[in-house]
Amino acid sequence: MNDKPFHDTPAIEDVRQPIRDLPVSLIREVSDLGIGKPGVIPLWFGESDITTPEFICDAAKNALDEGDTFYQPNAGIDPLRESLAAYMNRLYGTALTPAHVTITVSGMNAVMIAMQAIVGAGDHLVSAEPSWPNLTATARILGAEVTNIDQTPHPEGWQLDLDRLFDACGPKTRAILINSPANPSGWMMEPEAQRAVLDFARERGLWIVADEVYARVVYDRPVAPSFLEVAEDEDRVIVINSFSKSWAMTGWRLGWITAPPSIGTIIEKLIEFNIACPPGFIQQAGVTAIEDGEDFIKETVAGYRDSRDLVVARLGQLSRVMLPYPRAAFYAFFSVDGMDDGFALCRQVLEETGVGMAPGEAFGDVGKGFIRLCFATRPRLLDEALGKLEPYLR
Amino acid sequence: MNDKPFHDTPAIEDVRQPIRDLPVSLIREVSDLGIGKPGVIPLWFGESDITTPEFICDAAKNALDEGDTFYQPNAGIDPLRESLAAYMNRLYGTALTPAHVTITVSGMNAVMIAMQAIVGAGDHLVSAEPSWPNLTATARILGAEVTNIDQTPHPEGWQLDLDRLFDACGPKTRAILINSPANPSGWMMEPEAQRAVLDFARERGLWIVADEVYARVVYDRPVAPSFLEVAEDEDRVIVINSFSKSWAMTGWRLGWITAPPSIGTIIEKLIEFNIACPPGFIQQAGVTAIEDGEDFIKETVAGYRDSRDLVVARLGQLSRVMLPYPRAAFYAFFSVDGMDDGFALCRQVLEETGVGMAPGEAFGDVGKGFIRLCFATRPRLLDEALGKLEPYLR
Repeated sequence: MNDKPFHDTPAIEDVRQPIRDLPVSLIREVSDLGIGKPGVIPLWFGESDITTPEFICDAAKNALDEGDTFYQPNAGIDPLRESLAAYMNRLYGTALTPAHVTITVSGMNAVMIAMQAIVGAGDHLVSAEPSWPNLTATARILGAEVTNIDQTPHPEGWQLDLDRLFDACGPKTRAILINSPANPSGWMMEPEAQRAVLDFARERGLWIVADEVYARVVYDRPVAPSFLEVAEDEDRVIVINSFSKSWAMTGWRLGWITAPPSIGTIIEKLIEFNIACPPGFIQQAGVTAIEDGEDFIKETVAGYRDSRDLVVARLGQLSRVMLPYPRAAFYAFFSVDGMDDGFALCRQVLEETGVGMAPGEAFGDVGKGFIRLCFATRPRLLDEALGKLEPYLR
Repeated sequence: MNDKPFHDTPAIEDVRQPIRDLPVSLIREVSDLGIGKPGVIPLWFGESDITTPEFICDAAKNALDEGDTFYQPNAGIDPLRESLAAYMNRLYGTALTPAHVTITVSGMNAVMIAMQAIVGAGDHLVSAEPSWPNLTATARILGAEVTNIDQTPHPEGWQLDLDRLFDACGPKTRAILINSPANPSGWMMEPEAQRAVLDFARERGLWIVADEVYARVVYDRPVAPSFLEVAEDEDRVIVINSFSKSWAMTGWRLGWITAPPSIGTIIEKLIEFNIACPPGFIQQAGVTAIEDGEDFIKETVAGYRDSRDLVVARLGQLSRVMLPYPRAAFYAFFSVDGMDDGFALCRQVLEETGVGMAPGEAFGDVGKGFIRLCFATRPRLLDEALGKLEPYLR
């Protein structure tokens, strides 16, 4: 026991060590320096600058007018689960039912709930970097260990060495986490690689958690390859998706889990004990997004493609810059020769020009020397930002 | 390894054991039998039948019209954190600041996040029953053990024996969870007992998690006693609150955590890795609820008081029934002499009369022989429900 009265030491000293050890977000550290300041062009977050389309907002407002302000089923409302099953079947040629689908408050929430089902203290998770650190933070919160193997940057795009991924799996490994299309790298996993990962997972009795929130932000086909296309019903595959990126709904916090039907009641219980259910009026907006949102996706993705091409062309003229070609998602994740402190460069560029970007080291050690720029912004603003940025990269 | 291909066994067999062991909700099991059927009077959930007031809905709709559809800060928007700090200071005479307050998607989510900060595998939590099982389920999900001591029913109200609570704390105990006012019992902890728990927790280096979501649903004073009134800044006290019960906002999923400032960054990180942030337009509705919602609370609580008095009077005439006086919250949690299967009785009453209630065993072994009835419903409907129910209790 302590000599001092208990409350003379700060409470943080009694927080669990794995929680105290969680990384601070370097993205937030940069953005906190400039967010909301006049003249700042914010390209640091994974967010388009497009407001949610009016027809989606109207659906939420109408639901409120109709008194949709009560508790909803844990697994989500039936119309949304039905819409999503049909939507995925259209995209993937699958035969999913509403029983495969559970609604969550965001993709982030979906990852946390999937992890609670499958990893705990003493377990081990394998993934790859560069990656959005929040994905594996969920496993660390639950007391699991995480091994990230490095992907390698090439001008034609980042590459993943499957043998290295498999070699990282040991006796305590419970799951492999794959984010494709990937934030920040724009890497996308092809079906053959998905099949190889699934075969390995089957053989070793591992779960696959597939974060596919950028499924529709893809430029050479209508939708990215999904683990749903290669998996069978009771394969240990949990697919994460979200309304944030495709329907410009980041602020709504709406996502979904697609999982084997036998764990439906498990996911439902975890939803109950984490959040109970997403708001009904937000789920109604989700139904409208799915049913009426295809034109919006086509238009916005066409815009992101133009932005991608602009960024690739402009950065390609700078000899110090190497940008692995972003095949999907809406980020340029590029290295700058001779630069080893991304945070310092991001801060300098922010302070001197107002252009806000994220330092590569926020996405793992392999990201050192890189910078992430989200190009999901109006072309004129993007053009202006590139003009301001280029002098620092020559 | 298995002889059979991996996917020939159901995926649930590879879910973590503590998650498979989570209890099924007996409340949901009953309600699933009748929810949405014509003529059913649903008194099973902890939910008033009042729609969220229009002025609160309007605030959300206006925020949507203004384009509030983007990511928000992890800890919540400043105006809501400021409003809540001022609101609690008005109620409790405290000196809380926005730094004490973090916004969550529901009280449920707030409990999960508090638990992640303080308990993990091998840790131990102490609480009391009867209780809403979801509160301690959070600790079980994280791999912790839970001991619930029994409260005792008396006609004047449920009682808690503090010595039994303290005796249940051992070397692995990390936290005590107190829900006051309590669901389902209507029990309320007085300030002297709160001080005794705080003294014990200080001495033993324990956290207190205080679920105070029914703080305003109280009939003999404006607000229930809060641990915030007895704790000092760095005491290991985390208070959970929610917009659900006081402002008829169950479906909105909006709550808040009040915690020592030194763990503000910890809570903020956990929010980021669980849900990122509650929707901005819902937080705007929260600001309006706090600023303009006092008249609504006064009116609705006056109505709940009338309902409470009606239920107490009517059940008091039945010789088989013993209803410990519900001093707060909006439940009658009563025993029925000679009845030992609450689930069977609830099902029978539901099937034969359409009145939906929750079986007492859903709230712990001590609840066996009890029934929970939520009286937060229109007097005419409540009167009708009681008329239908009474023949089963004579």
